[in-house]
Amino acid sequence: MLAYLDHNATTPLDEKVFEAMLPYFRQHFGNASSRHEYGRNARKAVEEAREQVANAVGAHPSQVIFTSGGTEANNFMLKGASAYLKPSQLVVGSVEHPSVMKPAQELACMGWSLRKIASDGHGLLDLSDAELALQTPTGLVSTMLVNNETGVIQNVSAIAELARKQGAWMHTDAVQALGKINVNFASLNVHAMTLSAHKIYGPKGAAALVVDKRLELKPLISGGGHEKGLRAGTENVSAIVGFGVACELAQKRLAGSSGILFAMREKLENGLAGLGAVIFGQATNRVQNTSYFAFPGIDGETLVMELDRTGYAVASGSACSSGSTEPSSVLMAMQVERDLARGALRVSLGKDTADAQIDGFVVALETVLARLRKLSAIAV
Amino acid sequence: MLAYLDHNATTPLDEKVFEAMLPYFRQHFGNASSRHEYGRNARKAVEEAREQVANAVGAHPSQVIFTSGGTEANNFMLKGASAYLKPSQLVVGSVEHPSVMKPAQELACMGWSLRKIASDGHGLLDLSDAELALQTPTGLVSTMLVNNETGVIQNVSAIAELARKQGAWMHTDAVQALGKINVNFASLNVHAMTLSAHKIYGPKGAAALVVDKRLELKPLISGGGHEKGLRAGTENVSAIVGFGVACELAQKRLAGSSGILFAMREKLENGLAGLGAVIFGQATNRVQNTSYFAFPGIDGETLVMELDRTGYAVASGSACSSGSTEPSSVLMAMQVERDLARGALRVSLGKDTADAQIDGFVVALETVLARLRKLSAIAV
Ligand SMILES: Cc1ncc(COP(=O)(O)O)c(C=O)c1O
Ligand SMILES: Cc1ncc(COP(=O)(O)O)c(C=O)c1O
Repeated sequence: MLAYLDHNATTPLDEKVFEAMLPYFRQHFGNASSRHEYGRNARKAVEEAREQVANAVGAHPSQVIFTSGGTEANNFMLKGASAYLKPSQLVVGSVEHPSVMKPAQELACMGWSLRKIASDGHGLLDLSDAELALQTPTGLVSTMLVNNETGVIQNVSAIAELARKQGAWMHTDAVQALGKINVNFASLNVHAMTLSAHKIYGPKGAAALVVDKRLELKPLISGGGHEKGLRAGTENVSAIVGFGVACELAQKRLAGSSGILFAMREKLENGLAGLGAVIFGQATNRVQNTSYFAFPGIDGETLVMELDRTGYAVASGSACSSGSTEPSSVLMAMQVERDLARGALRVSLGKDTADAQIDGFVVALETVLARLRKLSAIAV
Repeated sequence: MLAYLDHNATTPLDEKVFEAMLPYFRQHFGNASSRHEYGRNARKAVEEAREQVANAVGAHPSQVIFTSGGTEANNFMLKGASAYLKPSQLVVGSVEHPSVMKPAQELACMGWSLRKIASDGHGLLDLSDAELALQTPTGLVSTMLVNNETGVIQNVSAIAELARKQGAWMHTDAVQALGKINVNFASLNVHAMTLSAHKIYGPKGAAALVVDKRLELKPLISGGGHEKGLRAGTENVSAIVGFGVACELAQKRLAGSSGILFAMREKLENGLAGLGAVIFGQATNRVQNTSYFAFPGIDGETLVMELDRTGYAVASGSACSSGSTEPSSVLMAMQVERDLARGALRVSLGKDTADAQIDGFVVALETVLARLRKLSAIAV
């Protein structure tokens, strides 16, 4: 079995989560909009999950709007808000996920002026540039809480303060933050926040936009009156139930977290340094599970495939934008040299990652690197 | 256990479908965009499901775009097409599902002129009115294949012919048709078609828009390059796998179908007639599983609750628009009197419905009706 070191792409479903979902595949299969008992059982489960999700981020259940994924929630926020705001400036981080960046670019084609906050060389959004950007009248700001590639934790509450001074709506994509750091809706001072189940050992198919109810959003998906008219469509009950339980378990894990991931990553990065890696974002505040690095002269895609053959599942750029051969736009925003960026490899640890997997990984990497370096020496 | 007679709202998950999904919750949990083995296994499963879905409607796999639900697919079609077309006339049936009607109304606020094709008293769209409507330049036409409330089968290919003569794009919502009648993309002569898994014993969370590749659609949900750039977001692999298998099983069932549902509905409707029901759409071509009716002077919601207590799960209006106390807009389009429409009850049979459940239902209904009629006589 391949050692799975790609938890930022997706996580294995927690067996406890799956068990909680099971009845909603079988006896409680009803449509949550139906009035009979099948429907009421489904409805009750959806509302319980809504509480669990709200609790995980210190929000009120009525603020939680379920969607099919983080990508949908990000699209809903940007497109839904822009439908109610007069086009003005839209500010996003330069290291955002494509599910924020693409909608932002679409708005830029519809009369909005798109301004990206610069990143420093470590992947941290530059607060003085945010300040500069927010001297201009701005309708909407969206910056992520934790970056999916580097793991860097952004200073969202500081950006939120600047946004609020301009009267802008402030959104944060917290998909990669949930379960890794403490995430609190109120203390982040945001108007809206995106969460996704499959990154926290929950199922694919459930996610949420958590919103300040004073915001007016146009639904992206309209039809029946589901989710208070903000997201139509038959609820994916089992996935929503799983999302709720995954949130609860993530909270507990976080409370009992003892730096095990941190110690494993330390060991990993010591090993990487010994092999000549450049580690991105190392000098700044990162979540404990993520390590992003490159070896000069070695192609990242090739490394992924070689490591796959050797028994280790890791990522090159972000899984979501794979299929492209362009170097990561996050690394470009960090002013990493193009050639080095093409070598980028991401290891993201999970709750079940074993210390021995780290040792094994470093050894495997050493072997693979030696072979690739020999090959490229011959080729020269 | 409550007898489930509400299969048009949602269906129980077929145990065979669930078994096919299981590995994708467990060992094959990968992100279909990842390059390593976990990712490749997920990708392979998604592409196999795409073939199964395409096969079920005689389309090519490359024409299938997966979405999170039928509602999303309908929104994607209407909003995605309108982004590429110059606003002109948009024609829809007067009996469409809210997931078509609401987006259509939104387009009407954005420069499109919305024209609804009238229904006759039996719920069948009036072809001469369609002809009239399509004398005006039209960009987009959307009419459903089978109505969710009445079960009436519309003449989509005839409307498609009229649409094509005007150079309009033709879409059909076939959510309630799949698995109940033969559905063929080519012979319906449409450019696009909506399907949904949870109506055919598949899981909630997977659906598709099947499209003629000459159509240009703007994605509703953008971000990573998933689904050829037409629908971003981490694929819900297990649900998509279930959708594929459900399509395959639905095809087989249809081929071996022997009119059992038809016979059961005949029995049911004979019983209903004996109790004084007005049956909607009875005089026209309907799918075999659906019966929609009302008893003058008896409220539909009350009937649903009373029957629920007695052991039968049925629907009043469409489950998707429940929460409202307005009479069904479908019945309004059919010119059914408002008071009678408020009494509407829908029974929708499924593959596991037993003959004895029909007998029991008619008896239960008789008892409930007798009580309610007595109560209303006292109240007068
Ligand atoms: C930071 C970030 N935002 C959004 C998403 C999209 O979430 P989902 O996969 O649920 O669509 C991802 C993951 O793909 C992500 O890492
Ligand atoms: C005719 C019709 N179209 C669309 C839908 C929406 O599909 P979904 O429930 O998958 O969003 C439904 C069912 O709710 C329906 O009956």
